[in-house]
Amino acid sequence: MEISKVGNFSEWYQTVLFDAGIVDQRYPVKGMPVYMPWGFQSLDHMFALLETLLNETGHQKMLFPVAIPESVFSKETEHIKGFEDEVLWITHGGLTPLEDRLVLRPTSETAMYPMFALWARSHADLPIKIYQTTSVYRHETKATRLLIRGREVYWNEAHTSHATFEEAAENVEEAIRIYSEFYRQLCIPFLVIQRPEFDKFAGAEYTFALDTVVPDGRTLQIGTAHNLGENFAKAYDVKYSTDSGESKYACQTSYGISMRGLAAMIAVHGDEKGIKLPFQISPVQIIFVPIYSKENVTEVDAKLKPVFESLKKTYRCKYDDSNKRPGDKYYFWELKGVPLRVEAGMRDLSEGKVTLVDRNGSKKVIAIDALSKEIPAAVEAYHKKLYEDAKTFFEKAQFSAKTIKELRERMDETRGMVRVGWCGNMACAEELDKLDVGKILGYEKGNDKERECVVCSKKGKEIVMSKSY
Amino acid sequence: MEISKVGNFSEWYQTVLFDAGIVDQRYPVKGMPVYMPWGFQSLDHMFALLETLLNETGHQKMLFPVAIPESVFSKETEHIKGFEDEVLWITHGGLTPLEDRLVLRPTSETAMYPMFALWARSHADLPIKIYQTTSVYRHETKATRLLIRGREVYWNEAHTSHATFEEAAENVEEAIRIYSEFYRQLCIPFLVIQRPEFDKFAGAEYTFALDTVVPDGRTLQIGTAHNLGENFAKAYDVKYSTDSGESKYACQTSYGISMRGLAAMIAVHGDEKGIKLPFQISPVQIIFVPIYSKENVTEVDAKLKPVFESLKKTYRCKYDDSNKRPGDKYYFWELKGVPLRVEAGMRDLSEGKVTLVDRNGSKKVIAIDALSKEIPAAVEAYHKKLYEDAKTFFEKAQFSAKTIKELRERMDETRGMVRVGWCGNMACAEELDKLDVGKILGYEKGNDKERECVVCSKKGKEIVMSKSY
Repeated sequence: MEISKVGNFSEWYQTVLFDAGIVDQRYPVKGMPVYMPWGFQSLDHMFALLETLLNETGHQKMLFPVAIPESVFSKETEHIKGFEDEVLWITHGGLTPLEDRLVLRPTSETAMYPMFALWARSHADLPIKIYQTTSVYRHETKATRLLIRGREVYWNEAHTSHATFEEAAENVEEAIRIYSEFYRQLCIPFLVIQRPEFDKFAGAEYTFALDTVVPDGRTLQIGTAHNLGENFAKAYDVKYSTDSGESKYACQTSYGISMRGLAAMIAVHGDEKGIKLPFQISPVQIIFVPIYSKENVTEVDAKLKPVFESLKKTYRCKYDDSNKRPGDKYYFWELKGVPLRVEAGMRDLSEGKVTLVDRNGSKKVIAIDALSKEIPAAVEAYHKKLYEDAKTFFEKAQFSAKTIKELRERMDETRGMVRVGWCGNMACAEELDKLDVGKILGYEKGNDKERECVVCSKKGKEIVMSKSY
Repeated sequence: MEISKVGNFSEWYQTVLFDAGIVDQRYPVKGMPVYMPWGFQSLDHMFALLETLLNETGHQKMLFPVAIPESVFSKETEHIKGFEDEVLWITHGGLTPLEDRLVLRPTSETAMYPMFALWARSHADLPIKIYQTTSVYRHETKATRLLIRGREVYWNEAHTSHATFEEAAENVEEAIRIYSEFYRQLCIPFLVIQRPEFDKFAGAEYTFALDTVVPDGRTLQIGTAHNLGENFAKAYDVKYSTDSGESKYACQTSYGISMRGLAAMIAVHGDEKGIKLPFQISPVQIIFVPIYSKENVTEVDAKLKPVFESLKKTYRCKYDDSNKRPGDKYYFWELKGVPLRVEAGMRDLSEGKVTLVDRNGSKKVIAIDALSKEIPAAVEAYHKKLYEDAKTFFEKAQFSAKTIKELRERMDETRGMVRVGWCGNMACAEELDKLDVGKILGYEKGNDKERECVVCSKKGKEIVMSKSY
């Protein structure tokens, strides 16, 4: 590597994704990269962590078909308006044109809710809480960016049905708690922001998003949760009979996190040596590097391998006895972001010692017998530093601007998340948009601060603006 | 349930898949059912088992795009001939026609090998051994059948590149060993059969398949492994330089197992009560059923729940304290195929005992303290019986026929796998086909027995014929 991500983020990001074996973008369809083993296995562990949190809160894993008939897809009018320009159409089976064209799911509301209509009969059938981890498809015409914007988006999407709007709203809160815990475990700071009316999900009553900041000062949306109210229930006839026998529409929610979670980890934690992966995510959690001289290969292995074999029962470990020099091995596994390294030559081993190094560079010589007991503390220290560094950067990216001039300067100089006042009128939003200083992310959850509109000076609320991906 | 699968297999199968919550076929696209939680989680555990076996033999998990440009897809001429009538075509992005139409992968050779061409540079880059667990798509025009033949096929496909044909051939042997171990763990008997020339995979040098027999006497192909030789390497330019600097085409293999693995488990092991799942596959491995009287709910829970909490650390357990009667709970979890049940009322509990029942009906009263130690033996006994019953059925389905008349009678009466002689000539194969008594599965691996052709009486080899799905 040896590229600093500061000042060269885009180049650094592209380089590290390829060099560390995350994705290969030479696949012959724009916006559809190949997930390499290291990249896909990281994603797999990331979604396993999310699935655990979803399972613990009563969500059930399922899988719905990839294709939605046009006649079904077009039932919710706001939704179809939001997506019709960017879906991929399947029009032929073999040489035969299909009678009802099929959409490749751009998100699965329209695939799932006709089935929810069959499953939600009475109050006792609710809530329905399900999810799937799979790919969705959008014909992006904007520039695509690896793991951030593509035509094939690998993600986890959850969908629920409830008896009342309040229960749906409470479920959106639960989704935000789950996603917050998820990103806490990945050491990624974020804000929860309610999107403005004009930027909510097509068909939703309201939308919350989790936004983080990457090293070039742009914002990355890393999760969303929508309260869909009765909108889709009406379009897809998701009704249940109440205890008193009345027929009522269900209220629905949907929420998702994509491969952008991995993009955020790479962008936020990485350094000039490469990637830094959280311990739960890394395909190899502990890399063993034996330091050989010509004569002592057998001796070193005899002392170090048993430790490796024993730790392998608990952690994902790898023993790198390849032909490379120790320094080259360090370089290779640091690039890939392996959290912990155990290195040892004969001198240390004959004293019953090894060196435990973490990807932040912290180093400790410890007794072999103490290694297994030391790992949890080393993991905790590693994550603590990852999180602290990330929070320091994130907090430095928070600004407030009182005037258009200040807003413009901020966006020109540092970017980040800039708070201003906005009256809520579209005219002023359009003025802000024309300035080309970033977009309105929305209202930070829990922040009801009143502020004068930065455009018209009328009474308004504090909003967050940012250049964003 | 209360449908016997003997004599009513088709009805039994359809009913059990719906009633046990495996799939819901009411989704509005033919051949694309919804995987319900119980069904998808079973599949997920099934593929996790397969992935473990693949990981242990040096295969790496990846993910390739779903779409293949027509220009790339059509490079291997045999392969495109085999698939062009049955692929789904993406022709439009939003309202815009695509310049290069996209195929939804019907299998991933043509998506992967252009990338292999970039990765295989020198001998040191080989072998490449990778896999993905994902869906592939075929516009089936024949009748579709749940988990057996559909337009969306969820599967695990492995692909490899090697330096020589011999190494590729050895890899096919390894694939067959992996698949054999996989089905041994699922208690499914099978034959490994080399498909005849006219039925090998489009683009392969030769194809092995694993075939089992389901209760209506038809054969189900539950896995395939192909030696592709240099065919695809030539079409996609997968070359490497040998140690002496020569440029050589790689030799490739591909192999896959689909959701038919689950179909086989359901069909082979099920009974009139429903499904029987192997222990590693069942989303719930041990179901706890407390037997309450009106007064003793708290007391029973106080004694039984701690056992549940403790076993939950090792196994996937569920405590069914729903409002239903014990008998209804038994019925429900038997239908779903949960391998083990722990049931106890106050009388047993006060003596420190519970009853351990397996899905085969075997029952044992044991001390609470002994439960955790008893589980492995109970699992072994459960699997042993599953396997023995399956083998008994499988062996009864093996026949040999000396004449066309015998062959015809066998296929009319019992179906199963029928061995006959075949000279290898297409004319005789076509004669056999005209009889409408089933298809030629091919040559059982390791069986070189010479036999007179059942059609022309000339010298030939023993082949296996069957009605098949």
